[in-house]
Amino acid sequence: MPVKYNAIIIRFGSEIGTKSPRVKVRYEKSICDYIRRLLEHHSVSFEKLEYTYGRAYLFTNETSEASELLTRVFGISSFSPAISTTSDIDQIADVCVSLAKEEFIPNATFAVRCRRVGTHPYTSLDVNRIVGERILSSLKDLNLKVDLENPMYTMGIEIREDKAFIFLETIEGPGGFPIGSQGRVVCLISGGIDSPVAAWLMMRRGCIPVFLHFDLGDFGDKRTRDKVTRLVRKLSEWMFNTPLRVYIVPHGENLQEIKDKCMDNLTCVLCKRVMYRVAERIAEMEGAVAIVTGEAIGEQASQTLHNLAVIEEATKGVPVIRPLVTFEKVETERLARRIGTYEISAEEEKGCAAAPKRPSTRARMGVVLKEEQKLDIERMVEIALERAEKFEIKYGNGDN
Amino acid sequence: MPVKYNAIIIRFGSEIGTKSPRVKVRYEKSICDYIRRLLEHHSVSFEKLEYTYGRAYLFTNETSEASELLTRVFGISSFSPAISTTSDIDQIADVCVSLAKEEFIPNATFAVRCRRVGTHPYTSLDVNRIVGERILSSLKDLNLKVDLENPMYTMGIEIREDKAFIFLETIEGPGGFPIGSQGRVVCLISGGIDSPVAAWLMMRRGCIPVFLHFDLGDFGDKRTRDKVTRLVRKLSEWMFNTPLRVYIVPHGENLQEIKDKCMDNLTCVLCKRVMYRVAERIAEMEGAVAIVTGEAIGEQASQTLHNLAVIEEATKGVPVIRPLVTFEKVETERLARRIGTYEISAEEEKGCAAAPKRPSTRARMGVVLKEEQKLDIERMVEIALERAEKFEIKYGNGDN
Repeated sequence: MPVKYNAIIIRFGSEIGTKSPRVKVRYEKSICDYIRRLLEHHSVSFEKLEYTYGRAYLFTNETSEASELLTRVFGISSFSPAISTTSDIDQIADVCVSLAKEEFIPNATFAVRCRRVGTHPYTSLDVNRIVGERILSSLKDLNLKVDLENPMYTMGIEIREDKAFIFLETIEGPGGFPIGSQGRVVCLISGGIDSPVAAWLMMRRGCIPVFLHFDLGDFGDKRTRDKVTRLVRKLSEWMFNTPLRVYIVPHGENLQEIKDKCMDNLTCVLCKRVMYRVAERIAEMEGAVAIVTGEAIGEQASQTLHNLAVIEEATKGVPVIRPLVTFEKVETERLARRIGTYEISAEEEKGCAAAPKRPSTRARMGVVLKEEQKLDIERMVEIALERAEKFEIKYGNGDN
Repeated sequence: MPVKYNAIIIRFGSEIGTKSPRVKVRYEKSICDYIRRLLEHHSVSFEKLEYTYGRAYLFTNETSEASELLTRVFGISSFSPAISTTSDIDQIADVCVSLAKEEFIPNATFAVRCRRVGTHPYTSLDVNRIVGERILSSLKDLNLKVDLENPMYTMGIEIREDKAFIFLETIEGPGGFPIGSQGRVVCLISGGIDSPVAAWLMMRRGCIPVFLHFDLGDFGDKRTRDKVTRLVRKLSEWMFNTPLRVYIVPHGENLQEIKDKCMDNLTCVLCKRVMYRVAERIAEMEGAVAIVTGEAIGEQASQTLHNLAVIEEATKGVPVIRPLVTFEKVETERLARRIGTYEISAEEEKGCAAAPKRPSTRARMGVVLKEEQKLDIERMVEIALERAEKFEIKYGNGDN
């Protein structure tokens, strides 16, 4: 009997499991709806998607195409391409033997792990024993051995009422919460590695991002704008059919004014404080509950913990969330690769030409406030907002 | 020739490498000082610790004892127990052959990777070739094969002037910055999994924690206080000889007052707002630049992003840093295990008895402020601070 994968077992994030049953079911069903729409959009045909508390079973012959998509669905903790059959123990054993014959290498060790819901003439332990013995006796020439501690292969069997699912592989999902289960947030985005990762981490926890990019004008790189658009497009692949709003705010003239009028070593702090103020205004306009940045402690000279506090003082009502605040650079890069933003972020571009050689690592609040009196900050913010360009990127029907 | 490990190659965090040369050398030397003191404290004898830009070489016969300690030194990205010898190519090849003989299994694949600083009669590629050939010809019975793409073993060779170091293994360090290179922070600590991990992440980035625990009195568990002390003691193992200050603040009466006077579904938000205020005062007293919490978006019903913003409004001057804000619970648990706090945190304890059955997930700022007018918050904070107990835990000379 040749083996044909025809189903996928989908497991929901363990944290969704800590919610009240009512919220849990609502979350999990909304994830199922999302999966259905995503599969349809990509023309992956499936017979049905069966939801049951804590799990869903997708019946499809296109398991590899579907798997590719499921790795990008928030709320899924893991999934397993499987062979579905009836709950008849002989049928189950037949499928397991065929699968083992196809996949196991000679001299391999294996274990059988059954999980069962419903009434059956056997227990889970019976299934483990019977299937294990059948594999050993049917595939003698492979010289297999059972190893319950540290097996090379684990033959997984999930029996649910009159159906059974057999699988060898468990693929990690992104985890997190369903899209939009938390509020909107304004995500600052540059062309770099960090900010898209920070935005993605918020998206994973259920937040809808509104992107805000500051165009540095003559101090920046002409290519950055296009990079940002492609980064948002890449991130949109994780939020099917959700329009992602992008604001591009001109910041070159404001930066020039800061350079012209203020102490050179405070440029970064003063620049960021203007950015935060603009972000706060956009948060109010968009009904967003937080500002999100890719800042990490000590990553750049101006990003001391002390300076982060001085910068944050510029926002009064909206909290600043920094998902990467204690990340190591290598951790951020690893995540960027997984998300798919790394390659775009890594494209060459000029750094900010306004950054001073020796930025202050310990800006004093009093001095900062005094320097700001040389600027008409209200007007800077107003003009930035007036000239802001706004567009939406949507991954889904009608677009990509 | 029997193989005897007698050195450890220590590599510093890659992010330290992005600093100016002056800062980099200062950071790396301070890590070396720390390592010396740590080894001495644990009576691990060593001949010397040789510092050179980006690397350090520890000469010791107790490589496994030293390795154990190095896994807990911030600023180290990785290290390799090694065999030191001269830069003579025949000596190097001899050591490599002996090491391969001892470690390689039959039919294994391997690669030789040489890194060289100084003037030598050979290039790095010469060394790779010569050593590879010598291993193959000397250990014919093992049937080894060179595989540069995906070898089972990598024979590392670092040649530095007249010395060479040969190693097979690279052990990951914690990364991060040297202790105290960033400012002090007030870390809220409960008995749970999250808060010690959040504190550790800040410690890794160079911050010195001041711990603050709220004793919930009749609403809490008598065992929690002892748990907290042991958690801080465990964390202190990462900060040799640095006294870690702990504040235990009575919070039971304040919580009772909130329960008695205010809307039940706002209990958690109001309670946290008092905690944040106390934390801010302690931050001022301690010269700390931030308040650190273990909060994650959506982890508990009261921890919606919306509520975090409402809670944060209570602090005016000191920013709140939440290293775990977008962590999945499984990620936090994995880290807790690595740090060594998991087992203590996982000990059974009663949850807070004051938590309402249906906490508000969307507390309204106006309502919260109105409820707070029923409380004498200034007095609550004052009394909490007056009755606070303060002590220090130090891992190092004279103590543990």
